[in-house]
Parts: sequence; C-alpha cells; structure tokens
Amino acid sequence: MELRYNPEELTRLPRSVTYENGKVKLIDQRLLPREFKVIELMTIEEVARAIVTMQVRGAPAIGAAVAFGLALYAETTKAKTKDEFFDGFYETYERLKNTRPTAVNLFWALNRVKKLVEEHRENSLDKIKHLIVEEAQKIADEDVEANLRMGHYGAEVLPEGNVLTHCNAGSLATVHLGTVGAVLRVMHKEGTLKLLWVDETRPVLQGARLSAWEYHYDGIPLKIISDNMAGFVMQQGKVDAIIVGADRIVANGDFANKIGTYTLAVLAKEHGIPFFTVAPLSTIDMSLKSGKEIPIEERAKEEVLTCGGCKIAPDVDVYNPAFDVTPHKYLTGIITDRGVVYPPFERNLKRLFKRE
Amino acid sequence: MELRYNPEELTRLPRSVTYENGKVKLIDQRLLPREFKVIELMTIEEVARAIVTMQVRGAPAIGAAVAFGLALYAETTKAKTKDEFFDGFYETYERLKNTRPTAVNLFWALNRVKKLVEEHRENSLDKIKHLIVEEAQKIADEDVEANLRMGHYGAEVLPEGNVLTHCNAGSLATVHLGTVGAVLRVMHKEGTLKLLWVDETRPVLQGARLSAWEYHYDGIPLKIISDNMAGFVMQQGKVDAIIVGADRIVANGDFANKIGTYTLAVLAKEHGIPFFTVAPLSTIDMSLKSGKEIPIEERAKEEVLTCGGCKIAPDVDVYNPAFDVTPHKYLTGIITDRGVVYPPFERNLKRLFKRE
Repeated sequence: MELRYNPEELTRLPRSVTYENGKVKLIDQRLLPREFKVIELMTIEEVARAIVTMQVRGAPAIGAAVAFGLALYAETTKAKTKDEFFDGFYETYERLKNTRPTAVNLFWALNRVKKLVEEHRENSLDKIKHLIVEEAQKIADEDVEANLRMGHYGAEVLPEGNVLTHCNAGSLATVHLGTVGAVLRVMHKEGTLKLLWVDETRPVLQGARLSAWEYHYDGIPLKIISDNMAGFVMQQGKVDAIIVGADRIVANGDFANKIGTYTLAVLAKEHGIPFFTVAPLSTIDMSLKSGKEIPIEERAKEEVLTCGGCKIAPDVDVYNPAFDVTPHKYLTGIITDRGVVYPPFERNLKRLFKRE
Repeated sequence: MELRYNPEELTRLPRSVTYENGKVKLIDQRLLPREFKVIELMTIEEVARAIVTMQVRGAPAIGAAVAFGLALYAETTKAKTKDEFFDGFYETYERLKNTRPTAVNLFWALNRVKKLVEEHRENSLDKIKHLIVEEAQKIADEDVEANLRMGHYGAEVLPEGNVLTHCNAGSLATVHLGTVGAVLRVMHKEGTLKLLWVDETRPVLQGARLSAWEYHYDGIPLKIISDNMAGFVMQQGKVDAIIVGADRIVANGDFANKIGTYTLAVLAKEHGIPFFTVAPLSTIDMSLKSGKEIPIEERAKEEVLTCGGCKIAPDVDVYNPAFDVTPHKYLTGIITDRGVVYPPFERNLKRLFKRE
C-alpha cells in the first residue's frame, strides 16, 4: 500500500491529543460544535477528569490521552528515588485506569507503558522517564499511521458518489484523521466523495455535534439527517455506500458499534448498497466466536428523555442500549490497517492474523 | 362489527376538540408533555392562530377545529341580515382555510359545511345557524365513531404481545381515541397489549412528546426509544407487530406517513413482523395510482438543527423531508373504519369503495 497523502494534506484539524513539555493538550469535545478550543492539562487529576467528563472521547483518543498522562507524570514528578518514582507511577496508573471502566484502548495503552517500564526497571531513572515519553508518543503516532493506512485502503474500495456515516469515527475520536474519517478524507482529496450524509445519531448526537462539525471544517460537502430519514434517502437512490466504525469486531465478522448501525445494515441490504466497517486490527477480538457473545451496555434514561440539554419527553420508561450488534452477513467488507477483509470473514480474518 | 366499548371506557382523556356555546375548546398540544391544559377560544382569530401555532395538530383534529370555528361564527356573529351573515361566513371560511396550506381534512371539513349552508341558503337565518352547529358536531362525532370502529377492527387482527408505533396517531391527533390510538386502547382494554414501544420520532418528536404522554396517561405500559433503536429491538425479538397512521393512502396501497415509517417497514420485513397502517376511508385517495405520485413536503432546516428547543448541530446543510412513502409490498394490512384490507390491495381497495 503506497500512502499517497500525509495527514496534513488530508485535514486542517490538529491532532485531538498531543503531549509536549509536561502538558497534555486536548480538543475539548464538550464545547463542540459551539466552540473549538484546545485545552492544556498540567496535572494527572486534570487528565483523569477530562476523560471522565468526556472532554476527550473515542477509544483511540482516550488511549493516547492516558499514555500521555503517564508521560506527564514522568516529566513532572518530584520523586528523587526509584522507589518513590515507581510508587507514583502505579498511583498514576490506577487513577487513569479508573476513569472509564469499559474503554478497551485505555487499559491497552496503560498496560503497554507499564510493561515497558517494568522491563526496564534496572535502568536509570532518567532513562525510564525517557522511555515512557517515547512510548506514549509512539502509541499516538501508530494510531495516526493506522488511520492513514485505513484511509488509503478504504478509498480504493468505496464507490465514487454519496456516502452515509453514523456516529463519529472521525479525527476527534482518534489521535488524528479518524478511522471512517480517514477514508472520507482520502476520498474527498481524490474527488470521489460527492456528498456525505451525516446521521445525527441519537441519543448523544455524535453525528450532528461532532461529525458534522469536523467534516464541515475540512470542507467536505455534507447534509445532516435525523436517523429515521436514512431509509428514505436510500430509497431515493441517493446513497452509494455506507461506512461506519466499530467498537468490537469478533472472529466471524459480527461487530458491535453505536446504536443504529444494525438498522442501517438492514437498509443497506434491502437497497443493495455496499456496507463497510473500518477499524484497526486492535479492535478485532478473535477470542469471541460470534456477536451474540458481545455484552451490550445500557445507559442512563436521561439520554433518551433529553436531547442536546433539553427535556423532550414525560418521565416514562425508556430503553437505551448504547450499541447494537450487526451480523456479518450484512457486511460487504472490513477495512483494516492491514487491508480490506471480505467474506468468508471467519476464514479471512484468521488468515489476516496469521500473516501478522 | 360489534362495538364492545364506548370511548369513555377506552380513555381517560377528554376529546381534543369540542364546541359549546360559542367556545371552541382545545387541548393545547404545545404545552405537552409539560402541562395538560384545555384552552377556550372565543374568536375566529384565536381558532386560526391555534392551528397556525400548532396548539392543535393532527389532520382529523384540525378538521373538527375549523368546523367548530364556523359554528363559533354562526353563534356569535352580529349579522342582522342574511347578506351580512353570508359575507361574514365566507370571510371566516377564507381565514380558516389559510391556516395550514396542505391539511386535507381542513379543506374537507370547511367545504362540507359550506356546501350544506349553500344548499340551505333559502332557509331562515336561525335555521342556517342551527345547521352549521349541528354539522360541525356531526363531523366531530363521525371522527370518534370511525376511530372506535378502527380500534375494534385492529384489535381483532393484531397479535397479542409488544407493539411498536411511530409519531402520534393518537387521541391528540384526532377528536378522540386516535386511529392507531384506538387500536392500542382496545388491545390494552382486552389485555393483549403487553408493551408499547414508542419511537421518539425526530425531528419534531411527536412520539416522545405526545404519544408517550397520552398512552402513559391511559396507563398503557410503554418504553420510549430513539428512532435508531427500532432495528435492535426487533432483532432481539421484542416486537410482535408495528402499527402506524397514514397521511395519504393511494389506490395500490402505497402510503405516505411521517418520516421514518419506511425504515420501520423495511425492518419489519427483515424480521417477519406484521406491519399495519390504520386510517379511515377518507384518507384513501383513489385518484392516485401509486405512491410515486405523492409529493413529499420538505420542512425548515431548523427542525433538524434543533431538538426540543436546543441547538444541537453547527449551521450546516440538512435534508428534512417531513414524510416518506412506504410501498404496499411491505404492508400486512390496512385497518379502516370499514374493515381490514389485505393484499392484493389494488383490487381489495377498489372493492371496499364499491361496497360503500
């Protein structure tokens, strides 16, 4: 795969999460779309709170944020001895770990740094500090590199025309570019993306608030629709492909993603529209055989009873599953950072992992 | 069809629109679900503004409101001569006609009263006034009677279990009981409605604001879901039937209804779930051959960019079709006030009208 563009050619957005000289910098996603503001965090407590309050969201962005949290610790700690340093390191590790209990990338990033540190326990304190900062930067850089690769792979296989997406798997949800976001940006760069349909994505509105904002910021022509308009738009022949992110893909190709994804998959099948998911290999969980094994998180009823801060319904019962599971039979292909996987998914995913 | 229940046995709600002694009384739907309030209108201008500002909405409810507007004129006019009376009558007719340009029932109700008045032009002024008030009451009573019949027909054919509905075709949208509302209420009365799934129905939220309120008010067990959760709920086997209203049904059974209906129809087919629409014969337009001839109204972008009064998105383009068209192949049956129509719809709708 030849990478034809670098990130700066694909987006005007800065990275969502960066680290420099004892400061973690974040695009504050709670302020979007009203205000675009980069905040600077100078203590571990500030980093932890930014994750809890969702100033930073999206699994890869959270992963980078906690890795940078450990870098921040390494460069600002007043620990004089190695013992003091390690005590503080584990304390920081625990504090960051207890921010979002279900974010897989968060644990993965923390443990990656922890493992490295423990392997180099016999090195000098300076050396260990240096290794932590370097590893955190590597975690962030690798995310951008993976997105860039997915963007190029995806743009090769998606048809020219109008694309529909759901939720936000854009630059804001990752360190830079996004998963879906990278594909859309390469397509836009090459002139094959005519119009982007953005599902608003109730109840939390990641589509209307974040995707619409970031793709509009990059000059991609788009229209927001309410989620229930997607079928009608497809019926009119105005959608040529659908592309969504994934929270977890399992061994047979079934995948969990933001609630509403399954409805889009059924609609895509009915209208003969190609339907892709985009995710790096790290999102594929080969330990689960089918989507039936993926637990579905139910969230607070207030998310459904309110919208953008306004109360919209009487105080009655609601059902609020945060994700749904789309069976692999609806999927055209899985766009990964190591190429596009087609059916039969079970065999082809296994092969992909063997190759690694 | 034996009518087993009268309206008062089916709902605790009063009629949405009534008339008595120079006063049109309305349930103010703009205040729902925050406040349940009946307002009294004593001038034509008040009636017209209640329609424009959507204090009253729903085609049958609007039809009754304008008929009562003419009754209000008849009983409060100071016209001494017939000429004066008729001048005022036509002025009132025009004022009410110019409230909602696309509401079919509005024109139908106004013209029904106008025709009667013109047929009795030679009668005494007192007689004419009396006829107007009587005809307006008849229009309202006939709506309730039609709903009651649909309720009984529908409850006979819907399976026992969980029912999903979209938008509001309940008591609030009609004079009393509703179209879908009557079916749900008869089912609830007979113990065959286990749980009602209420789609919130973006962008205007008639489901979350109005359906949830009125069915909860009548003690029907329900849960609100965001529109994009419907597919997941069906996938889990939690929906036994879907029932929606109709804005217009054409000769081959295709029908227009609130945006999102078509998506539900596709989902119903995929999951083998019976899918019904409910509407009186007056909603069936035999002059159009197929749904392709039904024009689709696009509404203001602010409806999509806001939700329940809150701004939810940056100021970008949107697409906001108010309705969609569901092809008849997705329909299990059409529940009318003269019985349930099954496929082939073209032949069976024609027969129904011949029988009339």
